[in-house]
Amino acid sequence: MSSKEQIAAFIKTEFPQARVVIESVGDKSAIVAQEIGESDLRPGGTVSGPTLMAVADVALYVAVLGEIGIVPLAVTTSLTINFLRRPEAGRRIIGECKLMKVGKTLAIGEVSLYSEGREEPVAHVVGTYAIPPAHLR
Amino acid sequence: MSSKEQIAAFIKTEFPQARVVIESVGDKSAIVAQEIGESDLRPGGTVSGPTLMAVADVALYVAVLGEIGIVPLAVTTSLTINFLRRPEAGRRIIGECKLMKVGKTLAIGEVSLYSEGREEPVAHVVGTYAIPPAHLR
Amino acid sequence: MSSKEQIAAFIKTEFPQARVVIESVGDKSAIVAQEIGESDLRPGGTVSGPTLMAVADVALYVAVLGEIGIVPLAVTTSLTINFLRRPEAGRRIIGECKLMKVGKTLAIGEVSLYSEGREEPVAHVVGTYAIPPAHLR
Amino acid sequence: MSSKEQIAAFIKTEFPQARVVIESVGDKSAIVAQEIGESDLRPGGTVSGPTLMAVADVALYVAVLGEIGIVPLAVTTSLTINFLRRPEAGRRIIGECKLMKVGKTLAIGEVSLYSEGREEPVAHVVGTYAIPPAHLR
Repeated sequence: MSSKEQIAAFIKTEFPQARVVIESVGDKSAIVAQEIGESDLRPGGTVSGPTLMAVADVALYVAVLGEIGIVPLAVTTSLTINFLRRPEAGRRIIGECKLMKVGKTLAIGEVSLYSEGREEPVAHVVGTYAIPPAHLR
Repeated sequence: MSSKEQIAAFIKTEFPQARVVIESVGDKSAIVAQEIGESDLRPGGTVSGPTLMAVADVALYVAVLGEIGIVPLAVTTSLTINFLRRPEAGRRIIGECKLMKVGKTLAIGEVSLYSEGREEPVAHVVGTYAIPPAHLR
Repeated sequence: MSSKEQIAAFIKTEFPQARVVIESVGDKSAIVAQEIGESDLRPGGTVSGPTLMAVADVALYVAVLGEIGIVPLAVTTSLTINFLRRPEAGRRIIGECKLMKVGKTLAIGEVSLYSEGREEPVAHVVGTYAIPPAHLR
Repeated sequence: MSSKEQIAAFIKTEFPQARVVIESVGDKSAIVAQEIGESDLRPGGTVSGPTLMAVADVALYVAVLGEIGIVPLAVTTSLTINFLRRPEAGRRIIGECKLMKVGKTLAIGEVSLYSEGREEPVAHVVGTYAIPPAHLR
């Protein structure tokens, strides 16, 4: 329902700290990418867990907005992350989100996170978003 | 096994971005606190989800280190967060962690997150940590 | 809002297979107990995972009904279980549920599961319930 | 590493109550199916949550055994289920598992559960299995 550009502009106002680029959105899915900076790294040259969670959170939000339109009141209600492999410091983190359900009050999706160019995911996320009732949007 | 000061020093090197203060640690539990800065806020004056997740992650780590000693190789393997209420922008986030199990290879704990001074939690986290085998520590 | 007896009668019609006894309910919490039968056991004399999940699911449901009254349409939307210790075959499973939030559309609670008489939990559950809007109840 | 028949025989001894049929296993994945009986139903003609969790648990176990061989000591350590749609009483439940990681001590996979013949999943599960060290197998 919303274009990539509309969502990108909205994300910029809602998550001013987000450094995520929207690669694609639509058909109950979204792909986002994030450059890794000094503040995302942990000693040993890996990407911090909270950075991964933040990328997944935005990927889910972008996919939800792609389905229901720009709805500022949509909020994450839960998020489960499993860390699978060490992300590489020198590669962008890619988040690929697929929504499993977009109901009237709840959307549920999963996100696979990758170090760009690698085949095996570094983490996997399942998240739920509460969608405000139509008359409150 | 480790004192609050040892753990605080270690956290500072492992999570150089962390702005968490350790209030207490010991007896399979830990309490940490984090000042909220501009970069933690979302429009409307609430604390971002990734900031809450980061505080919970550190609270778990501190509690685990309090039990097993300073073990750099311990890593988060999973984290489930449920967002319960809007945190307040002007209050520190307090994370209270209780470990439910500290096994040979896995530690599991829960963290209740609060806006300082409030009774009702803003979020609840369950997380697991992988503990490296003794000969690798 | 509902008495223990009302909820017990309702559970009996909604979960006819449930063999759970309600020990207490009220004040955003509930305690339930389940006898362990042959069909709940795994070789080696421990209680199966699905049996533990079923007890936790009922404990959450009982606690929710205790708050919002008898609402047949309330449904579990998610459940996260962490298995902590081997339950004992010869002891009832006790589920202690505390609700963390009872909102208009969602209730969230945690359940600690015990082998009766033991201090350390055998498993920990976080679950969410969708509450139907008032005009649909 | 193990054939479908070997795993089926093993599951029968480990989960004597399981009524699951293994449709396929291999390549870090597994598909299982379960007939729905009276004891799996809830009033209104839907399949109970614990039945879904049990199918997912076995699907994960079968996929893990397909990778590491018959290892009796492997145990579920956590399971997160999101309920998406009402399953239909008259259809078998199909569980499709894909392992995301098979490490030395931990395997992580996801399971999509379907009412047989339907396209949209009724539930989604992420689970972790602890794998005993080689010298204990």
